[in-house]
Amino acid sequence: MEQEFSSRLLEDAVTEMSRLPGIGRKTALRLALHLLRQEPQVARSLGDAVIKLREGVVYCRKCHNISESELCGICGNPARDPSVVCVVENVKDVMSFENTGSFNGLYHVLGGVISPMDGVGPEKLEIASLIERIDKEDIKEVILALSATMEGDTTNFYIYRRLAEKGVKITQIARGVSVGNEIEYTDEVTLGRSLLNRTLFSDQFQS
Amino acid sequence: MEQEFSSRLLEDAVTEMSRLPGIGRKTALRLALHLLRQEPQVARSLGDAVIKLREGVVYCRKCHNISESELCGICGNPARDPSVVCVVENVKDVMSFENTGSFNGLYHVLGGVISPMDGVGPEKLEIASLIERIDKEDIKEVILALSATMEGDTTNFYIYRRLAEKGVKITQIARGVSVGNEIEYTDEVTLGRSLLNRTLFSDQFQS
Repeated sequence: MEQEFSSRLLEDAVTEMSRLPGIGRKTALRLALHLLRQEPQVARSLGDAVIKLREGVVYCRKCHNISESELCGICGNPARDPSVVCVVENVKDVMSFENTGSFNGLYHVLGGVISPMDGVGPEKLEIASLIERIDKEDIKEVILALSATMEGDTTNFYIYRRLAEKGVKITQIARGVSVGNEIEYTDEVTLGRSLLNRTLFSDQFQS
Repeated sequence: MEQEFSSRLLEDAVTEMSRLPGIGRKTALRLALHLLRQEPQVARSLGDAVIKLREGVVYCRKCHNISESELCGICGNPARDPSVVCVVENVKDVMSFENTGSFNGLYHVLGGVISPMDGVGPEKLEIASLIERIDKEDIKEVILALSATMEGDTTNFYIYRRLAEKGVKITQIARGVSVGNEIEYTDEVTLGRSLLNRTLFSDQFQS
């Protein structure tokens, strides 16, 4: 059912809000009417935060995590161990691993996984920059921490092959993460344990 | 689970978005990360629309519906019948009745219903302004179109008493079995009232 709005401003707000994932026009209308009932400051703070978010957030030049400066808070922290790099799919996964409190190394955010079905090839991911980091930095171990899906496995294997001759130890997080589940929806205890129980990537071919 | 964000801007955006009803911090984070993946224009349009909505939308001085000028599009439309006023709870209800295409009169938006439990008394609603309209305008009929709840009934009765001596006809929208609903799943109070308020079967063919 298309709603006929009496106000162009309401129409605009509903249209913009309904572009967000999981928010339909009905929900957007409910949110807009809620905002109209609040103090003007509420809508202004929300609007400002959304605009500043997209304009102010940049990506760390080293690990591609979100940041507000050239180097993110993790890469720039001298207490972190720069010899271990955990390869993750996206920014949210960095947060998930950080929340476990089980990891003291650095990250490398790929920006996705290889998915031919969605037209995502290795060249669209931060894999070249990962290889560059291996060459330039003193990295001893790369932990592959991608989702336990077919795309995650494909990406793991691709990275493994590209890094094989670099002499860096390649591990992957333990498959305590149930097969088919995504990192985003896995609980912290399981995630923490999956880091502790990481195994040599090459071991799975020997058995 | 409190998320630890690496970015103050992300933290702000998530906090502001999670103030919206039905949006928790987890959903807000998902929306924020979605915006970060879009073109900057998407976040700017959304932010602008939200700010302009609250700053630009005013309320019609006559019926209190949302408007962009002193008089809303319905009150200002000379084709509408100003002698019938439909009293509704909120702006969304105006839209719902407009979408039926069955009403050609004007509205009066109360801004809520009397609810002592929530501390909403008659003085917090647009009831005084309704009485003023009855006194000043040439209104022949007031249709009470509030929700069929205890609060709606209380408000209906309060308005009825306040308007009793004004000589205006006061009606209320029909209460009965909703179109499409089965008798089996309709509550007894509604069924009882639908019997009392039964209409001539042949009446439906005359309109």
